[in-house]
Amino acid sequence: MKKLSSSFSFGGIQSVYSHASVVNNCEMTFAVFTPPNIKNPPVLWYLSGLTCSHLNVMEKGEYRKKAAELGMAIICPDTSPRGDKVPDEKDNWQFGSGAGFYLDATKEPYYKNYNMYSYIKDELPELIGNNFDFDMSRQSIFGHSMGGHGALIIALRNPKNYKSCSAFAPIVEPSTATWSSEAFKKYIGPNKKDWEKYDSVALVRDGFYFPEILVDQGEADSFLNEGLRPWLLEDVCRKSQINLKLRMQSGYDHSYFFISTFMSDHLMWHKERI
Amino acid sequence: MKKLSSSFSFGGIQSVYSHASVVNNCEMTFAVFTPPNIKNPPVLWYLSGLTCSHLNVMEKGEYRKKAAELGMAIICPDTSPRGDKVPDEKDNWQFGSGAGFYLDATKEPYYKNYNMYSYIKDELPELIGNNFDFDMSRQSIFGHSMGGHGALIIALRNPKNYKSCSAFAPIVEPSTATWSSEAFKKYIGPNKKDWEKYDSVALVRDGFYFPEILVDQGEADSFLNEGLRPWLLEDVCRKSQINLKLRMQSGYDHSYFFISTFMSDHLMWHKERI
Repeated sequence: MKKLSSSFSFGGIQSVYSHASVVNNCEMTFAVFTPPNIKNPPVLWYLSGLTCSHLNVMEKGEYRKKAAELGMAIICPDTSPRGDKVPDEKDNWQFGSGAGFYLDATKEPYYKNYNMYSYIKDELPELIGNNFDFDMSRQSIFGHSMGGHGALIIALRNPKNYKSCSAFAPIVEPSTATWSSEAFKKYIGPNKKDWEKYDSVALVRDGFYFPEILVDQGEADSFLNEGLRPWLLEDVCRKSQINLKLRMQSGYDHSYFFISTFMSDHLMWHKERI
Repeated sequence: MKKLSSSFSFGGIQSVYSHASVVNNCEMTFAVFTPPNIKNPPVLWYLSGLTCSHLNVMEKGEYRKKAAELGMAIICPDTSPRGDKVPDEKDNWQFGSGAGFYLDATKEPYYKNYNMYSYIKDELPELIGNNFDFDMSRQSIFGHSMGGHGALIIALRNPKNYKSCSAFAPIVEPSTATWSSEAFKKYIGPNKKDWEKYDSVALVRDGFYFPEILVDQGEADSFLNEGLRPWLLEDVCRKSQINLKLRMQSGYDHSYFFISTFMSDHLMWHKERI
């Protein structure tokens, strides 16, 4: 693990590290905020959306003030493998670099690198546990858009690993959204049954369960009707008695101006449950 | 004036505009945050540092939550003229694009474009006054590094225009700092007497007066001893009975991780005086 940068902020430390990832077969970068005045803080994972890296929420998410106050470590991984040796489609923002979709690819040539599901669930927590004095028995997870999708599927499939889950404007049914279904086909093949384990609506329909989920969604989000459609998640959660708190936020779009506005609410949601 | 973007944030509106600047002879871009629930908010100007544009503080400054709460409009101008027709030194981060130093150039070929002093003091306030329902009789000013220098010299030379002034890690004596003196020479010639009207330490020494100034400075700032040296300002302010509140912040560097940490303190400083 290599420290790339480190700065004081709100009494804590905001750092960036890189390491050689085994499951993604490339160098991966992530950001860590260590809060002040607490010995073994719990860990909150933030998963970013399409085109993002570890940087976006670190720079624009405005999480440090509240995380310092609440005593929570925040970890912001990258959204995909990267590098000259990683297969990619440079001009496609919905596939490859910045678009890992938090799944484990099975198809050539992607399966050697695009394993963000295992990376977020296993490899990175192990690295963090070995290198930081954080309480890895208390982890929670949230994210935005594609990262909201990631948080939902990872929490639904591993409910014992996470104390709480929330999302900003998540892609709730990537199997049927145009901006994700093409990527799913390339990463894991044309069989739609295989896609369902990376689709929160399908997972809930299949009986996967997480007791409570907070979702904030901007009503002025230009991706709302085509790609996000939180009502699909609302529908299956109601049937499965999952307590989904879906808050439609009037006037807000898909940007970090929206995320930062409701960031404190999400941190408090996790703090109460972690 | 052209609206380039607009997003809801913390109940207010964060927008970006561009307009044809007369004094800079090019298209200029600036960001405006309009707070909610207040009819004629006062106006706080934030001037950015070297290499920055209107974007840096808008994305990383974390001012919206507190500005919304306090009911203050925040305006973030660019740091220099830009464009194909503006003379520049592409590889020099301390001169030209992103390095206007908030002065009015007098030398060829710069004097036609590099007039950030008049732009910030006169042209942009007039444009804002004509296009927004802000209370232009209540303006304050602050900034970071080169922008801290800008805020200091503009407030010192125009104390009736601004209700309050503060700075993060300002360049207090640009005439004698290596990273600014070369630019001064190119913009306004070799005569050091001409530089002094854009140098806060020299201005205070020459009798220019602003009653109170708040300065936050990180002790781990790598530019502290070479370029910033706030003790020079402290010294002349003491002699001139200017109430300089200089806070040395242990552990903090020159980044927006530092600025965002103390942003709320500065907004409250201005709110109490504006």
